[in-house]
Amino acid sequence: MSRPVQVAVLGGGSWGTTVATLAAANTPTLLWARDENTVAEINEQHTNSRYLEDRPLPESLRATSDLREAAEWADVLVVGVPTQAMRSALAEAAPHVRPWVPVLSLAKGLEMGTRMRPTEVIAEAFPGHPVGLLAGPNLAREVLDGKAAAAVVALPDAAVACALQPLFSGRRFRVYRNEDLLGSELGGVLKNIIAIAAGMSEGLGTGDNTRAMVLTRGLSEITRLGVAMGAQERTFAGLTGLGDLMATCMSPLSRNRRVGEELARDKSLEQIIEEMNQVAEGVKTAATVMELAREYDVIMPIAAEVDAVVNDGRHPREAYRGLLRAAAEHEIDEVA
Amino acid sequence: MSRPVQVAVLGGGSWGTTVATLAAANTPTLLWARDENTVAEINEQHTNSRYLEDRPLPESLRATSDLREAAEWADVLVVGVPTQAMRSALAEAAPHVRPWVPVLSLAKGLEMGTRMRPTEVIAEAFPGHPVGLLAGPNLAREVLDGKAAAAVVALPDAAVACALQPLFSGRRFRVYRNEDLLGSELGGVLKNIIAIAAGMSEGLGTGDNTRAMVLTRGLSEITRLGVAMGAQERTFAGLTGLGDLMATCMSPLSRNRRVGEELARDKSLEQIIEEMNQVAEGVKTAATVMELAREYDVIMPIAAEVDAVVNDGRHPREAYRGLLRAAAEHEIDEVA
Repeated sequence: MSRPVQVAVLGGGSWGTTVATLAAANTPTLLWARDENTVAEINEQHTNSRYLEDRPLPESLRATSDLREAAEWADVLVVGVPTQAMRSALAEAAPHVRPWVPVLSLAKGLEMGTRMRPTEVIAEAFPGHPVGLLAGPNLAREVLDGKAAAAVVALPDAAVACALQPLFSGRRFRVYRNEDLLGSELGGVLKNIIAIAAGMSEGLGTGDNTRAMVLTRGLSEITRLGVAMGAQERTFAGLTGLGDLMATCMSPLSRNRRVGEELARDKSLEQIIEEMNQVAEGVKTAATVMELAREYDVIMPIAAEVDAVVNDGRHPREAYRGLLRAAAEHEIDEVA
Repeated sequence: MSRPVQVAVLGGGSWGTTVATLAAANTPTLLWARDENTVAEINEQHTNSRYLEDRPLPESLRATSDLREAAEWADVLVVGVPTQAMRSALAEAAPHVRPWVPVLSLAKGLEMGTRMRPTEVIAEAFPGHPVGLLAGPNLAREVLDGKAAAAVVALPDAAVACALQPLFSGRRFRVYRNEDLLGSELGGVLKNIIAIAAGMSEGLGTGDNTRAMVLTRGLSEITRLGVAMGAQERTFAGLTGLGDLMATCMSPLSRNRRVGEELARDKSLEQIIEEMNQVAEGVKTAATVMELAREYDVIMPIAAEVDAVVNDGRHPREAYRGLLRAAAEHEIDEVA
């Protein structure tokens, strides 16, 4: 029998730590975190209180603040560093990673300036390596609390994806696979703008009908953009598209949804960002999504209204009126 | 200019009355209700308090208890009679309906005994007429309260569908069209079984992740069955599939969801049905869906567990365990 596959996870945030915990139940796992205190706490107390309160982590999960150690150790590298910090971390790690090692992204969003997807940034840093992502409707705390959830390993090479599935699977964590990396990654980026729209609907006190309409038509327009960019339509109906969108829109914890809700309740974007201590991903990507919509000639009425609210100061009430004015046409091939 | 299209709606329940109200804003509309008191109340007080409390109905909406009058009057016939009562009502109306009149169903469910879809029952009663449905994530009360919503006219003949769209559209009610009648109708039938599963998840106190997983994988399995039966995959991602499923699962008013919730909280099905004073549609269709799954050789793990809970007395907790045991495979082509 060959020796077990060693998993290294870069990033000691809530989701990186959670994925490391999942892996540690199956195989030797090393977590890299920048912060020395977090590393010491994980190794000694088996908690990561900064992100995950007092939830117990497995004793077998080891942490290090030495990026080179983690890179050299990896048979599978998982990148849980935030999108905007990823490029520099990978530049530092790449020279120490062995050939052939598959690299999985946990990040959502697009790199500012380049508009690159996280796996594109990874592919630049790791030419020739299989690159994919692990994504789905996953709230770190719920997964750690043992609530059932599912995710997808999206990777173009099905054989590699099959080999990675069992590393992250658990009794209450199902891992599916999908070859459509582009669609799986776009779902996580584009859903945020729809989550803001759903939050606006919530904040305006519109009904369950309206919310269902916004989500369904919203998914339809991000699907159209994704397909125009080369993704598979069905991926958007799966866990990384619809699933992630639903979890985001149902969860009161979602930042994107909250932004929409509070904008609708007359708070200014500046005030909301200040209070949240963090910019919701959808706020940053709204303009980029509209650039892509123009570039690929896709009609996205909901995204356009969210962009107008977030970037041009339109009031959500006004945005809703705009949406309702647009004529309804064919359900699938919207032309209006 | 030709004279305006006259719409007749059969059925004075909450949804039939609401659709008649939508039509009455656009064109002369006559509502048939069996109950004399309801008819008198609509004509004199412009309310339907039995189903819609004191919500005002338009003065232009006329009601009759004479089925023949409604049938003769119709240029477009809308059938809002419950599925199980539909066949006898249509037999009575059909001899008085003019040729070519399009017939739209508002019903969800399958006819007991025959397993026929409402539009199949209609097509038998109206051979040669264009037959379709008007469906979507629509709670009657929210629509009447002017909350924004959207629906689909599903009808194989696009020209007829285009002509019907404006009859039901309103400032806050968008009407799309879709040629895939089979898929649009199946969505409304099959979603109920997933709504029960989502309710079970709610009642067991599982997290938002789990609920998103159940909804996404549930939609995936009803899509597989629908496609095997000849429907379009994309229809299930639209308003009559995903949209209706989301509205049902988000709304505390949904009977199907409530059944699942209360079963998970250890109530017996008998007790729940007695308290609800009505059998939720999903309870009746669970066994039929499993028959179809076997007939079309489609794997439906979530529907199978709901069927076991509803018809074989399995506890929802046990059903959830069963679901989690099944292996996760490919996201789209599940084979396990």
